[in-house]
Amino acid sequence: MQFEIERIVRTALEEDIGLGDITTEVTVVADTVARAQLVAKEDFTLAGIDVAATVFRTLDGDVSFEKLLEDGHQVKRGEVLAWIRGGAPVLLQGERTALNLLQRMSGIASLTAQYVDKVKGTNAVIVDTRKTVPGLRALDKYAVRMGGGRNHRIGLFDGVLIKENHSAAAGGITAAVTRAKQKLPHTLKIEVETRNLTEVQEALDAAADIIMLDNMNYDEMRQGVELIAGRALVEASGGVNLETVREIAETGVGIISVGALTHSVKAADISMLLD
Amino acid sequence: MQFEIERIVRTALEEDIGLGDITTEVTVVADTVARAQLVAKEDFTLAGIDVAATVFRTLDGDVSFEKLLEDGHQVKRGEVLAWIRGGAPVLLQGERTALNLLQRMSGIASLTAQYVDKVKGTNAVIVDTRKTVPGLRALDKYAVRMGGGRNHRIGLFDGVLIKENHSAAAGGITAAVTRAKQKLPHTLKIEVETRNLTEVQEALDAAADIIMLDNMNYDEMRQGVELIAGRALVEASGGVNLETVREIAETGVGIISVGALTHSVKAADISMLLD
Amino acid sequence: MQFEIERIVRTALEEDIGLGDITTEVTVVADTVARAQLVAKEDFTLAGIDVAATVFRTLDGDVSFEKLLEDGHQVKRGEVLAWIRGGAPVLLQGERTALNLLQRMSGIASLTAQYVDKVKGTNAVIVDTRKTVPGLRALDKYAVRMGGGRNHRIGLFDGVLIKENHSAAAGGITAAVTRAKQKLPHTLKIEVETRNLTEVQEALDAAADIIMLDNMNYDEMRQGVELIAGRALVEASGGVNLETVREIAETGVGIISVGALTHSVKAADISMLLD
Amino acid sequence: MQFEIERIVRTALEEDIGLGDITTEVTVVADTVARAQLVAKEDFTLAGIDVAATVFRTLDGDVSFEKLLEDGHQVKRGEVLAWIRGGAPVLLQGERTALNLLQRMSGIASLTAQYVDKVKGTNAVIVDTRKTVPGLRALDKYAVRMGGGRNHRIGLFDGVLIKENHSAAAGGITAAVTRAKQKLPHTLKIEVETRNLTEVQEALDAAADIIMLDNMNYDEMRQGVELIAGRALVEASGGVNLETVREIAETGVGIISVGALTHSVKAADISMLLD
Amino acid sequence: MQFEIERIVRTALEEDIGLGDITTEVTVVADTVARAQLVAKEDFTLAGIDVAATVFRTLDGDVSFEKLLEDGHQVKRGEVLAWIRGGAPVLLQGERTALNLLQRMSGIASLTAQYVDKVKGTNAVIVDTRKTVPGLRALDKYAVRMGGGRNHRIGLFDGVLIKENHSAAAGGITAAVTRAKQKLPHTLKIEVETRNLTEVQEALDAAADIIMLDNMNYDEMRQGVELIAGRALVEASGGVNLETVREIAETGVGIISVGALTHSVKAADISMLLD
Amino acid sequence: MQFEIERIVRTALEEDIGLGDITTEVTVVADTVARAQLVAKEDFTLAGIDVAATVFRTLDGDVSFEKLLEDGHQVKRGEVLAWIRGGAPVLLQGERTALNLLQRMSGIASLTAQYVDKVKGTNAVIVDTRKTVPGLRALDKYAVRMGGGRNHRIGLFDGVLIKENHSAAAGGITAAVTRAKQKLPHTLKIEVETRNLTEVQEALDAAADIIMLDNMNYDEMRQGVELIAGRALVEASGGVNLETVREIAETGVGIISVGALTHSVKAADISMLLD
Repeated sequence: MQFEIERIVRTALEEDIGLGDITTEVTVVADTVARAQLVAKEDFTLAGIDVAATVFRTLDGDVSFEKLLEDGHQVKRGEVLAWIRGGAPVLLQGERTALNLLQRMSGIASLTAQYVDKVKGTNAVIVDTRKTVPGLRALDKYAVRMGGGRNHRIGLFDGVLIKENHSAAAGGITAAVTRAKQKLPHTLKIEVETRNLTEVQEALDAAADIIMLDNMNYDEMRQGVELIAGRALVEASGGVNLETVREIAETGVGIISVGALTHSVKAADISMLLD
Repeated sequence: MQFEIERIVRTALEEDIGLGDITTEVTVVADTVARAQLVAKEDFTLAGIDVAATVFRTLDGDVSFEKLLEDGHQVKRGEVLAWIRGGAPVLLQGERTALNLLQRMSGIASLTAQYVDKVKGTNAVIVDTRKTVPGLRALDKYAVRMGGGRNHRIGLFDGVLIKENHSAAAGGITAAVTRAKQKLPHTLKIEVETRNLTEVQEALDAAADIIMLDNMNYDEMRQGVELIAGRALVEASGGVNLETVREIAETGVGIISVGALTHSVKAADISMLLD
Repeated sequence: MQFEIERIVRTALEEDIGLGDITTEVTVVADTVARAQLVAKEDFTLAGIDVAATVFRTLDGDVSFEKLLEDGHQVKRGEVLAWIRGGAPVLLQGERTALNLLQRMSGIASLTAQYVDKVKGTNAVIVDTRKTVPGLRALDKYAVRMGGGRNHRIGLFDGVLIKENHSAAAGGITAAVTRAKQKLPHTLKIEVETRNLTEVQEALDAAADIIMLDNMNYDEMRQGVELIAGRALVEASGGVNLETVREIAETGVGIISVGALTHSVKAADISMLLD
Repeated sequence: MQFEIERIVRTALEEDIGLGDITTEVTVVADTVARAQLVAKEDFTLAGIDVAATVFRTLDGDVSFEKLLEDGHQVKRGEVLAWIRGGAPVLLQGERTALNLLQRMSGIASLTAQYVDKVKGTNAVIVDTRKTVPGLRALDKYAVRMGGGRNHRIGLFDGVLIKENHSAAAGGITAAVTRAKQKLPHTLKIEVETRNLTEVQEALDAAADIIMLDNMNYDEMRQGVELIAGRALVEASGGVNLETVREIAETGVGIISVGALTHSVKAADISMLLD
Repeated sequence: MQFEIERIVRTALEEDIGLGDITTEVTVVADTVARAQLVAKEDFTLAGIDVAATVFRTLDGDVSFEKLLEDGHQVKRGEVLAWIRGGAPVLLQGERTALNLLQRMSGIASLTAQYVDKVKGTNAVIVDTRKTVPGLRALDKYAVRMGGGRNHRIGLFDGVLIKENHSAAAGGITAAVTRAKQKLPHTLKIEVETRNLTEVQEALDAAADIIMLDNMNYDEMRQGVELIAGRALVEASGGVNLETVREIAETGVGIISVGALTHSVKAADISMLLD
Repeated sequence: MQFEIERIVRTALEEDIGLGDITTEVTVVADTVARAQLVAKEDFTLAGIDVAATVFRTLDGDVSFEKLLEDGHQVKRGEVLAWIRGGAPVLLQGERTALNLLQRMSGIASLTAQYVDKVKGTNAVIVDTRKTVPGLRALDKYAVRMGGGRNHRIGLFDGVLIKENHSAAAGGITAAVTRAKQKLPHTLKIEVETRNLTEVQEALDAAADIIMLDNMNYDEMRQGVELIAGRALVEASGGVNLETVREIAETGVGIISVGALTHSVKAADISMLLD
């Protein structure tokens, strides 16, 4: 992920700084050294602390970024996340970009942690979707992991999900699964989206590895789980929120995918304070 | 903004599709033609319809994207935003990326519109900040405009905002403003962040063009506005939310900057339905 | 794969043409129209005909490239693969790049087809490895498919292969598989490399999805297949060549991975003839 | 060549690793230090040892890569080429890319060395062509030099080769050479492809600097050499292989260009062994 | 500006060196250490010394570049600007690129200094335009500052200049200014180009922040200044050269923009001498 | 050169327009169609007309650019170079970039034409150097050709010039030439820089293909030409200007290289007038 983080940080810095931080250039002596801390202004689950470090180090390889907490940590309001020491212009120029990334990532981790907490004690794991912010998928998905969730496929290239339109185009679920098994790398499981129990049965007969129960109600989910009976992984999708996730988990599904983890993120409240 | 949209769309598509949409490749005949509609699943302010079109056209120049509504439109649940016609694989491959962009942008526009609505009848305008998602600033700021807001500076390169740290480094507000006026392009206004009325007075004396009242309470804001008396633009910043924004506007400030417009976005609910 | 092909073709053309084809510039009138055919000088399996078309179209969108044969076709010596019509400079400048790509890809497809032919009638499928030419993996793997083979994982990011070093680092096969199952996307199968039957048994007990028999002799392979008894996919690797592949297939393994498909390619003999 | 090597290595690593080596991430502790050796599994001529070093150093600047042999060395089976010490994940992630590059380059050097050996004692030098793998030309051509061969022009931009189509377009060899001499940088020699002695004579009369005898038989070559009598460099091309190259060299030509050096490469057998 | 300098230097080096400095490669032993000085061959104002350093450091991080003079210094013929120590090939390969950049930048700074000198004692400041060399605007504008000038807007994105065509399209100067004030960031001043006193009056009435007197004669300028009477900044443009600039300044305008500063540059004479 | 022109134009437009031409956006209706002409404001030699077309077409593929004159034409003041028709915003946004490129290129062509004119009737040709503007070398060298000059090597990679430092490092001119002849592509001529007749003799004895007489006076040049007597090409370098070039040409040298052609360019005066 190293190259991807470098790409994201570089793009972000170029976007914000362009040909120069004109305010700092005319007010701050270039070689003034400064020290700053990243401080939590509320409770949250930390994600992105190394990305924040990369922001400052990309601007100046000599910046010292002392990380006090690791990603995944449950941060309490007032805790110091890291100490940063370097040229004052560098600190001022990296501040907004570092915070923009760190606050979003920690926001995702925190929301994920809430979902994970809700299903504690069930067999269900919380996974993300492809509903991420364009250009930041690697970070969004990493943040989900830091919140205790797991990742679904990264993109269209590394996982198979036969949706309704694919089945229809292939001439039915059976045909679609058969073709996928014949053509695709043997390293990938075949997942099929189903909308009712008839489709669940068809996917099961076609020996799908994963069966997604899409937008079903609790009863249907329970029946789906029963029908599948361990012969495939079961994923619930659609209508998942903090109110519904527990009851969904209790239907016995193994995987619950949640778009909201990444498509509607509330930034965690973090400040950078210069000494 | 054309090149930037192309860059964003391209990055997003490469991120999602990588070396190929393997599910579609094995299930859908490449030259099947399909038709789809983008439909609103809730009420919102539209932003990003041309960006969505660019997604599909980047995949295939022959896709027809018929836009039914323009950005800025107040969309009602159930309204069709656009009709898309093209190769079925192209529609399936572009769907997620187009929605990810369109839903975020419309989410921003809708939230902005709420703020703008709150201050209706006052002299205040709602502006954004640099708290945007890294890599998408151009789209985030465009969406704010579509929601009726206005933009603050794009980045550190095209606007001057002398914050506390800058003033301190320069030896005070007066020194900082003076240097900015002597060194920077005459085309830019000089903005100064102030935390109390003493600093407001100093900024005024230094002939700052814009004075930001940062994290002041309503009374301080009112006194600040009175003190400035039209000799500089007045911007309120900090502690702005949908509950406070009206009262802030009524203090007489001309500009209210709102970080939440872009840092904590709820995606608008939009679907793509294939015929 | 469209963007990747564009990237490869563009890189190749820039590498070959640089600031200009100086010979053509001084000898050929720029707007002379020419016609050329791509002709097979030996028998082979075709792969890359659309890539060749992309070469010429990247140089000039107005070139007409009429494809007479599709990838996967068993070409006979003397067959015409395609007719190209366009500016003479464009044809001369694209010739070498188009041939370099087409000849390599067809070489891979042809070698793959020989392996596939050798195992006909057995249950084994021929798959590739990551021993591809840096920068051309997408094309190398596509060519394998055109020759009747199938693809192993694309890279380190989309498949799990627990090799000896990974097991050792994790504290044994069992621990490694367990961690992979707990942490990685549920969409991926877990493959384990084994060097003897004890390791096969351990991988089986750990519920690995795919077991690789690495550098085993025929007897060991047969015993491995028997031991696994359908509870996991079985992949043979190491020491595979056109002399050994049939006997390996007859041990009952389901997948045979062959590095030579892509690491030691003989270019297919193809010429471009201008009228 | 430094920037080009960096580009190639970076592209190769991104292609193989993408968003991460997921197997290593879940099985290997990130800061485990490991040591590995690159070992020859057969005899070959070494090329690419510094490129292999660049692979590991691009992943992590702190890797120590101790080179034991230099490019151009005749390696014996069992010899250790280099010792590498660094983070275990880094060694595992760089292994395949480093080997893919090193094995191809050494394969080219070894094949070149065979050709060079065949013509020992004659005046002929072995040169390469533009039949290289797209994207790797700089490395392919470097490897030829390490094998004792020399380079023909890099691409269409830095050398002049008037082929049949160019002559035809210009109105004959004389006209083509004349225009090239009038228009092109005085720093470049003018080479003309000829198919028979009449054309050789015409090229000679036009004062071509280099005359290529294309696809001629031994007798024609001998006559060509005699006709030219030192007034131009003589290059033989076409039908060159390890069986024919000696006799071609003995016709007296000064340069023999061999496409097979780079278009049909057998990878040298090299392993990386972790301690 | 750091990233932009890196981009410019990298582009320049790739352009000049391509796949290698073939002369140096065959004549100079790679690890020979050399020392060189940059020496002024005429009097000029220095600009670009750090850019020159970046050239050598981009080629090799170990080069030592000891800067003896700072940008903005009035260099006398014969003065040594810097000492460079590093690998002889690196010094030879970086020489031309470093000089090309340093000579152009110092040429711009020197010409600017002449203009600035001419207007000494008046209230006018000398500013640049967008007539810079494509790709080098950041350096061109930096050099103007080193010569004592100031910058106009960087590009079309960070400043507002309503020219005749814009006014016409908007329905007059008043309409254009009004729209700009309503729509654009409050951080930017609005500048209007005027061709006569009627337009000056209209711009003044529309409350333009800056009024450009375009191609007016001295009398018109004087009347314009009088009319504006400090209510807007006044910029003179058109027909400015070293002969006219003093008289223009004496009309009382505050800003004089000079295209020639960057569009017609005479390189400063600087040599690199190897010990 | 097509890809290079695209790169240059794209870089230039992004540099100037960034995230948008904010003045035009608020004043001009996006789909207003406009027409403009490019007009000569002085006499000059045209170069870059197709580059100017590429600027507008890069912004909008639908722009019509009707070229009235070809590169190389001796333009008279008042002549119209081209008519452009397209969206008004596109014309306004492309204007400055198109002119910046066209004016520089025509400036170079015009200056070259003056030098070429001066040496008319002698055997000398005028060639350029590597003293070009970083990033624009391809255009600078093209413009020299349009002015009737010829190109020296493009960069360090496609031509051999053994300077004093190279000879010294190699152990003398003879050693340096010998090594170059043994190692470098046979397609390149070997050029040697000489400072006196002794060195000329040494270069001649070493069979250099081109001998540069560097900074010699007229007498030395004449003696050099006499000494060489047609056995090598002779290039004069150093101290060349419009006053000296004729006398240099009359010494009998065949090639005169002129740095000023590209390092000190006066932009040709060209305007774009909207109807």
